Amino acid sequence: MRTLKLTIAYDGTRYVGWQRQENGLSVQQVIEEALQPMCGDLAAVLNGSSRTDAGVHAAAQVASVRVEFAHSPTTVRRALNVTLPADIRILDVVEAEPGFHARFDATGKSYRYRIFTGRVLSPFDRWFVWHVPQRCDLDAMRDAAAVLVGRHDFSSFQARGSTVLDGWRTLERLSVEPVGAEIHIDVEGGGFLRHMVRIIAGTLVDIGVGTRPSGSMAAALAACDRQAAGRTAPALGLTLMKVKYSK
Amino acid sequence: MRTLKLTIAYDGTRYVGWQRQENGLSVQQVIEEALQPMCGDLAAVLNGSSRTDAGVHAAAQVASVRVEFAHSPTTVRRALNVTLPADIRILDVVEAEPGFHARFDATGKSYRYRIFTGRVLSPFDRWFVWHVPQRCDLDAMRDAAAVLVGRHDFSSFQARGSTVLDGWRTLERLSVEPVGAEIHIDVEGGGFLRHMVRIIAGTLVDIGVGTRPSGSMAAALAACDRQAAGRTAPALGLTLMKVKYSK
Repeated sequence: MRTLKLTIAYDGTRYVGWQRQENGLSVQQVIEEALQPMCGDLAAVLNGSSRTDAGVHAAAQVASVRVEFAHSPTTVRRALNVTLPADIRILDVVEAEPGFHARFDATGKSYRYRIFTGRVLSPFDRWFVWHVPQRCDLDAMRDAAAVLVGRHDFSSFQARGSTVLDGWRTLERLSVEPVGAEIHIDVEGGGFLRHMVRIIAGTLVDIGVGTRPSGSMAAALAACDRQAAGRTAPALGLTLMKVKYSK
Repeated sequence: MRTLKLTIAYDGTRYVGWQRQENGLSVQQVIEEALQPMCGDLAAVLNGSSRTDAGVHAAAQVASVRVEFAHSPTTVRRALNVTLPADIRILDVVEAEPGFHARFDATGKSYRYRIFTGRVLSPFDRWFVWHVPQRCDLDAMRDAAAVLVGRHDFSSFQARGSTVLDGWRTLERLSVEPVGAEIHIDVEGGGFLRHMVRIIAGTLVDIGVGTRPSGSMAAALAACDRQAAGRTAPALGLTLMKVKYSK
């Protein structure tokens, strides 16, 4: 039994997300079906590091899979890329230690949320950037972001109806940077609650455009109540950038 | 009677090109149909600076239109962007001199052709970049590009079956630059034959990867015969970047 580690990029636009679901096509399902012919009787089961939502993208999702075949990692990468649709690409396949699990072994993940505040959104960015055609106060957004860095109970930034009870998470980084005509919100942490990055981005934008007062982030965090935070930013602006492992 | 000058960006992936055609949806048709309700009995007829091919994109196509209504340029831009699909955006509308014609008055156009020579093409670039997974000799491509700059008969670089008899055109610039993991071919000139930029890009790549000898460009140009040049690069890598006017 071998374990392979796959690094995967995808345009999430037409998928229900990473995770297999009854109600539509997931990235996981498409890759597992492409891998299955190599696996014979053993079911191809991918464990992804992150369950990206419908419409969320990945620059470098990581997944692990246990296989019995003898094909080299390079052969697996090439064979998958021949079969897969062009909106999913296997960037890399390497041999991992036998027990490696892409989700359980991940020590950190980083996401980028892209916002465009100009007048007309470029057609080339329409599936990847949230268009907020208002002036954003970057300083207010940065002050608010700084409040969230560190270890906190992020229950206010968790999707309603989520079954996770422990809201404590650590944000190692939360930066708000102008990049050309865009604002990039870069987040790094050990783990995230459901919709956490999108609710943080939405709340930061609410503060940036002034529909929520600057200085209101500390109260939103302390409330441990979804209603205390701002809107959920749309999925399309979010990209999983990198997954870290200790070895 | 007023004349408006529109600057337009589009993702050309799902269109038959700029120009109205019987066999499918064109960018021109979509914009004219969005404009028609403002025009009353007068037919909305756009004159575009460039007849981009099916699948070719525009960062800043320019079109002129004669109208009788009194709406401000800003109102026209906003109204069109509300109606148009997100893969076509009106970047700007300004009042032009009454006789202005976007095609006849253009003094120059620039195009960019994007090539990716890496192993795996990013899913985010799949509609905008030609994937050539081979090493390209940049020096050979640049030497070949230099041969084409200036005023020449470009008949070798014209689509077969084209009805244009005079092949003389002036290339003011033809650069080959590495940009990250891509190669950008930037072309600037007063006018172009049908498929000319794509045949130039294809021939440069043939020389870059070595399927045509370096140093063969002068003979290809001199032949004035389509068979003497290389392949036609796919439409998806090409973007109309800018149109110049003398005033």
